[in-house]
Amino acid sequence: MIIDIHGHYTTAPKALEAWRNRQIEGIKNPAQMPRASELRISDDELRESIESNQLRVMRERGSDLTIFSPRASFMAHHIGDFQVSGTWAAICNELCFRVSRLFPDHFVPAAMLPQSPGIDPATCIPELVKCIEQYGNVAINLNPDPSGGHWRSPPLSDRFWYPIYEKMVEYDIPAMIHVSTSCNPSFHTTGAHYLNADTTAFMQCMTSELFKEFPTLRFVIPHGGGAVPYHWGRFRGLAQEMKKPVLEKHLLGNIFFDTCVYHQPGIDLLTRVIPVENILFASEMIGAVRGVDPQTGRYFDDTKRYVEAADIDPGQRHKIYEANARRVYPRLDAALKAKGH
Amino acid sequence: MIIDIHGHYTTAPKALEAWRNRQIEGIKNPAQMPRASELRISDDELRESIESNQLRVMRERGSDLTIFSPRASFMAHHIGDFQVSGTWAAICNELCFRVSRLFPDHFVPAAMLPQSPGIDPATCIPELVKCIEQYGNVAINLNPDPSGGHWRSPPLSDRFWYPIYEKMVEYDIPAMIHVSTSCNPSFHTTGAHYLNADTTAFMQCMTSELFKEFPTLRFVIPHGGGAVPYHWGRFRGLAQEMKKPVLEKHLLGNIFFDTCVYHQPGIDLLTRVIPVENILFASEMIGAVRGVDPQTGRYFDDTKRYVEAADIDPGQRHKIYEANARRVYPRLDAALKAKGH
Repeated sequence: MIIDIHGHYTTAPKALEAWRNRQIEGIKNPAQMPRASELRISDDELRESIESNQLRVMRERGSDLTIFSPRASFMAHHIGDFQVSGTWAAICNELCFRVSRLFPDHFVPAAMLPQSPGIDPATCIPELVKCIEQYGNVAINLNPDPSGGHWRSPPLSDRFWYPIYEKMVEYDIPAMIHVSTSCNPSFHTTGAHYLNADTTAFMQCMTSELFKEFPTLRFVIPHGGGAVPYHWGRFRGLAQEMKKPVLEKHLLGNIFFDTCVYHQPGIDLLTRVIPVENILFASEMIGAVRGVDPQTGRYFDDTKRYVEAADIDPGQRHKIYEANARRVYPRLDAALKAKGH
Repeated sequence: MIIDIHGHYTTAPKALEAWRNRQIEGIKNPAQMPRASELRISDDELRESIESNQLRVMRERGSDLTIFSPRASFMAHHIGDFQVSGTWAAICNELCFRVSRLFPDHFVPAAMLPQSPGIDPATCIPELVKCIEQYGNVAINLNPDPSGGHWRSPPLSDRFWYPIYEKMVEYDIPAMIHVSTSCNPSFHTTGAHYLNADTTAFMQCMTSELFKEFPTLRFVIPHGGGAVPYHWGRFRGLAQEMKKPVLEKHLLGNIFFDTCVYHQPGIDLLTRVIPVENILFASEMIGAVRGVDPQTGRYFDDTKRYVEAADIDPGQRHKIYEANARRVYPRLDAALKAKGH
């Protein structure tokens, strides 16, 4: 089985975006604030949006199951207040839940949180609990910068975030550390802010003792870990200067990287540098880079081709495709076992 | 000849830091503001600080000449106002100039600028002119984020920066795009902020037509280009979606990466992905990562070993070591030719 641990619902029916635009208008003009119940998307519309997009591509490329969360760039936690984020997260999580019900063999949901800049993350717990207990979510996406590129929250190692971590430990779920749209003109969202956040999150963990405090806490750092594997020597050297244990002991029991790296040399470096136990197959399809690479004639984000061509053995490939995901996402493993997989 | 294009005066005599601390105190208490003339460092002290550090290591590792600029993390443009930055930049640039006079065969200076958050970069021109015309500097370091991790300046493509670019074109000098200390607790300075800034700068150029406006403008992006080469497929794909020319045409006539990547797999990826014409040898020695890699028994920042072991031919290695630097830094080339090199 090939599990893609990083998919977003980037292809939701247009009605979703239209509702969100009305909500954003409603921040300025509360009389126009739409109710959640005004958004109506039928099962047929959901089915069509998935069958003609993600599921079609999964079949073409040969992956079986996607951990599916709301569109990352649309989380936009910097917009409005906690109330606005709360309504928006509930809507988006419900859609991913419905997709998982419509295609139970192919999509398992992960939740976005109703984060809001400066607001105690504990406010996100009710939505998290609902998504785990009622919707069968197997993970959350945690935004380390709800300000959208201004980086005004405390580092991930700060007690500020502990309420989330305590629930993650209780439910034994991992978090993908994933920012959203940048509203800072310095940072292009998918070309700079996403990758910067990955590197930043790794370094926030490295300088802390977070995983001593929470030994079973697990973070998935997407986009191949940002700049981290390419600069693995730099990070090893910095850890050594800080008198930290070697990174395998200090961080790799708790931090995992996905394979959203869109060319062969990048995946080759990732698999050469990072232990395969810490690499999870993912494509972020259909996402930031949708075109065909003229150098290969294949889609840039067809990461399975790169993993297939990487210099690893079948046992290692099985870990990347399936075994690691089942270990890092125990609720996914349990759900699969319940179905006889 | 082996030219290291990225060295900082990280080993300046302690009197420099003591003076800077007094200057920072003087911001709060102007009566205590020290005069520049109160800093006294003798030629012998300068000689000692270089001979026992950078020059010793250059001899051990076999590099010949370093483009030498003030310590990056000490630029700290976010401290004080333009007046404070102006005095500090003048002091630091003068020290690098003196080092270049004491060791003319081994050090050529590059200038820091007296940037200050929110202040028109044109205010930096007099210091720049002095450094080029009187001190023989061959390049500048340009900080895209003088706020120190808050990223409040316009992107590098903005007209805000044009006064600097016009002088760079006039003097035919490149800029290394290099941030300084992060005062944002989200970002570790050398583990996150530096690498993020490299990726950010590349993306700011990619989304713009800056190099159509300034066809001869040249940026050196340090630390191996941040996350860029590792994600080269992502960047090629993003450029394609934006209907930009291929990156070779769109950016690589103007953007160059150094080799400050502290392990063999990173340098292997860099040389596999980026045309050798765009790679410049550098170590940033003595800098952020000073230890010995227990996996190799060699210093992490001994980047020459990685370049020696990379799968490139002697002609390509010569470009990385010398020829590219002489092309990208024409004033260095002229100075070398004047000495018969």
